[in-house]
Amino acid sequence: MSATGGRQEAARDLARLSINQETLKQWSLPELAEGCRSLGVTNVGLWRAPVQEYGVERAARLMRDSGLTVTSLCRGGFFTAADPAARAAAMDDNRAAVDEAATLGTDALVLVSGGLPDGDRDIAGARLRVADAVGELAAYAAGSGVRLAIEPLHPMFAADRCVVSTLGQALDIAEGFPAEQVGVVVDSYHLWWDDRVPDGIARAGRGGRIVCFQLADWVTPLPEGVLLGRGQLGDGCVDLRGFREQVDAAGYLGPVEVEIFNPALWARDGREVLAEIADRYRRHVL
Amino acid sequence: MSATGGRQEAARDLARLSINQETLKQWSLPELAEGCRSLGVTNVGLWRAPVQEYGVERAARLMRDSGLTVTSLCRGGFFTAADPAARAAAMDDNRAAVDEAATLGTDALVLVSGGLPDGDRDIAGARLRVADAVGELAAYAAGSGVRLAIEPLHPMFAADRCVVSTLGQALDIAEGFPAEQVGVVVDSYHLWWDDRVPDGIARAGRGGRIVCFQLADWVTPLPEGVLLGRGQLGDGCVDLRGFREQVDAAGYLGPVEVEIFNPALWARDGREVLAEIADRYRRHVL
Repeated sequence: MSATGGRQEAARDLARLSINQETLKQWSLPELAEGCRSLGVTNVGLWRAPVQEYGVERAARLMRDSGLTVTSLCRGGFFTAADPAARAAAMDDNRAAVDEAATLGTDALVLVSGGLPDGDRDIAGARLRVADAVGELAAYAAGSGVRLAIEPLHPMFAADRCVVSTLGQALDIAEGFPAEQVGVVVDSYHLWWDDRVPDGIARAGRGGRIVCFQLADWVTPLPEGVLLGRGQLGDGCVDLRGFREQVDAAGYLGPVEVEIFNPALWARDGREVLAEIADRYRRHVL
Repeated sequence: MSATGGRQEAARDLARLSINQETLKQWSLPELAEGCRSLGVTNVGLWRAPVQEYGVERAARLMRDSGLTVTSLCRGGFFTAADPAARAAAMDDNRAAVDEAATLGTDALVLVSGGLPDGDRDIAGARLRVADAVGELAAYAAGSGVRLAIEPLHPMFAADRCVVSTLGQALDIAEGFPAEQVGVVVDSYHLWWDDRVPDGIARAGRGGRIVCFQLADWVTPLPEGVLLGRGQLGDGCVDLRGFREQVDAAGYLGPVEVEIFNPALWARDGREVLAEIADRYRRHVL
């Protein structure tokens, strides 16, 4: 095969691969754009804080000029407060997130629901407040081209980060609204342990509810606080290819976004990490 | 109320309370027996390692002579190995655990299934091996007076400790065998986040499958390794009284066992901790 043919083959291989910016936290937005270009990666998932810091319009232009598609914006949500003022502030912030997603041209705004307010022991009540808030935000987002993607987080985050813990719960909420407005995130890291996920993925696919598909591997021991313990693809015990095959079989044809929060990856050279991810993606996902 | 009347009232309050030995790891078995006697606690849950060290027959005699009922023995299980020799060794160890439980006079042997073997990414396959092993052990335990209590552990332990992650999964396995041989553990720490638990508790109650009921609270942040992060009753976000009311409504009338792994409790005076637990139990559970 010629060198050109090899590069084209590589590009075809990686056509669905998207790199979530938090995976390469050591990179600025321009470094991310240049790194992706040089490795033939054409999709990125972005986070609000670094995008706001760079400037939302400016980030949108940079991505466009670099030939990059923004596959998701992380994240809205955190609307479990019972207090009316805190709830109103959260909705303001979420409307801003919808606007930012629209500016970036992504159709997926990831929502992490938020945990239990201090002293609250009623997780069922908090989940009802999430459903209400999603409905309010969906009305705002209608017509913007932005879909809300409810992300179930692993149950170890249920208290302090996300009361939506299973794909089933996320779908129960999403299905209260039109599929073009609200769907779900399927993230292998959060869902791999759940024997009901195969049924949930099929259900999500039938309803056209898979807005975002993310991958990370599960490795132990978990670090203190458990947030930054995600594993590089292939380093853990998740059947990543099985996940990809299930979402494919459910009719999802969109990006496969790699989102790994791991200080060991952040400490390394970004290009080396991105090349390793592409290699792992070929070996463990395709 | 007279002092005697007060003590009798206290004893009635605490009639169902059981203290799992690991909650007061700073205590030897004689210290545990004496501490429980002085505070009017009449039930304990024991662990195999300290019981073996003290001597199983001797521990049984100590508990009997101290007027203590052994409400559970932790733990058998860890039988997810695919390798035949490792599996055979695990079954030998589990048969010994059944014998120890019978000697101690407890009817509940808690089983923690074990995690995924190194390099294994097939959690569904591991769960099938658990079901097979439970069947083999149930046949051995039949007639011994010891029931096997399958404990679902929080999904954060699915990889390295217990592939049985939900009450539903535990019941799916248990219901393959007679209720007098195999049931489940309902532990608030592991199950509090799951919206399907109310249905699961009702299902377990209908089938007479609740062998053991344990309480700990959920507090954050989780420590490195996450094993020793359990909270004192009332310190976290679990609706402990709601759990107790649900198992009661499901027809369970047995012990309410407090099992908290927490180095901060182990560093304190055991009597002070036990008195605090009794107080928290009255305020948050009864």
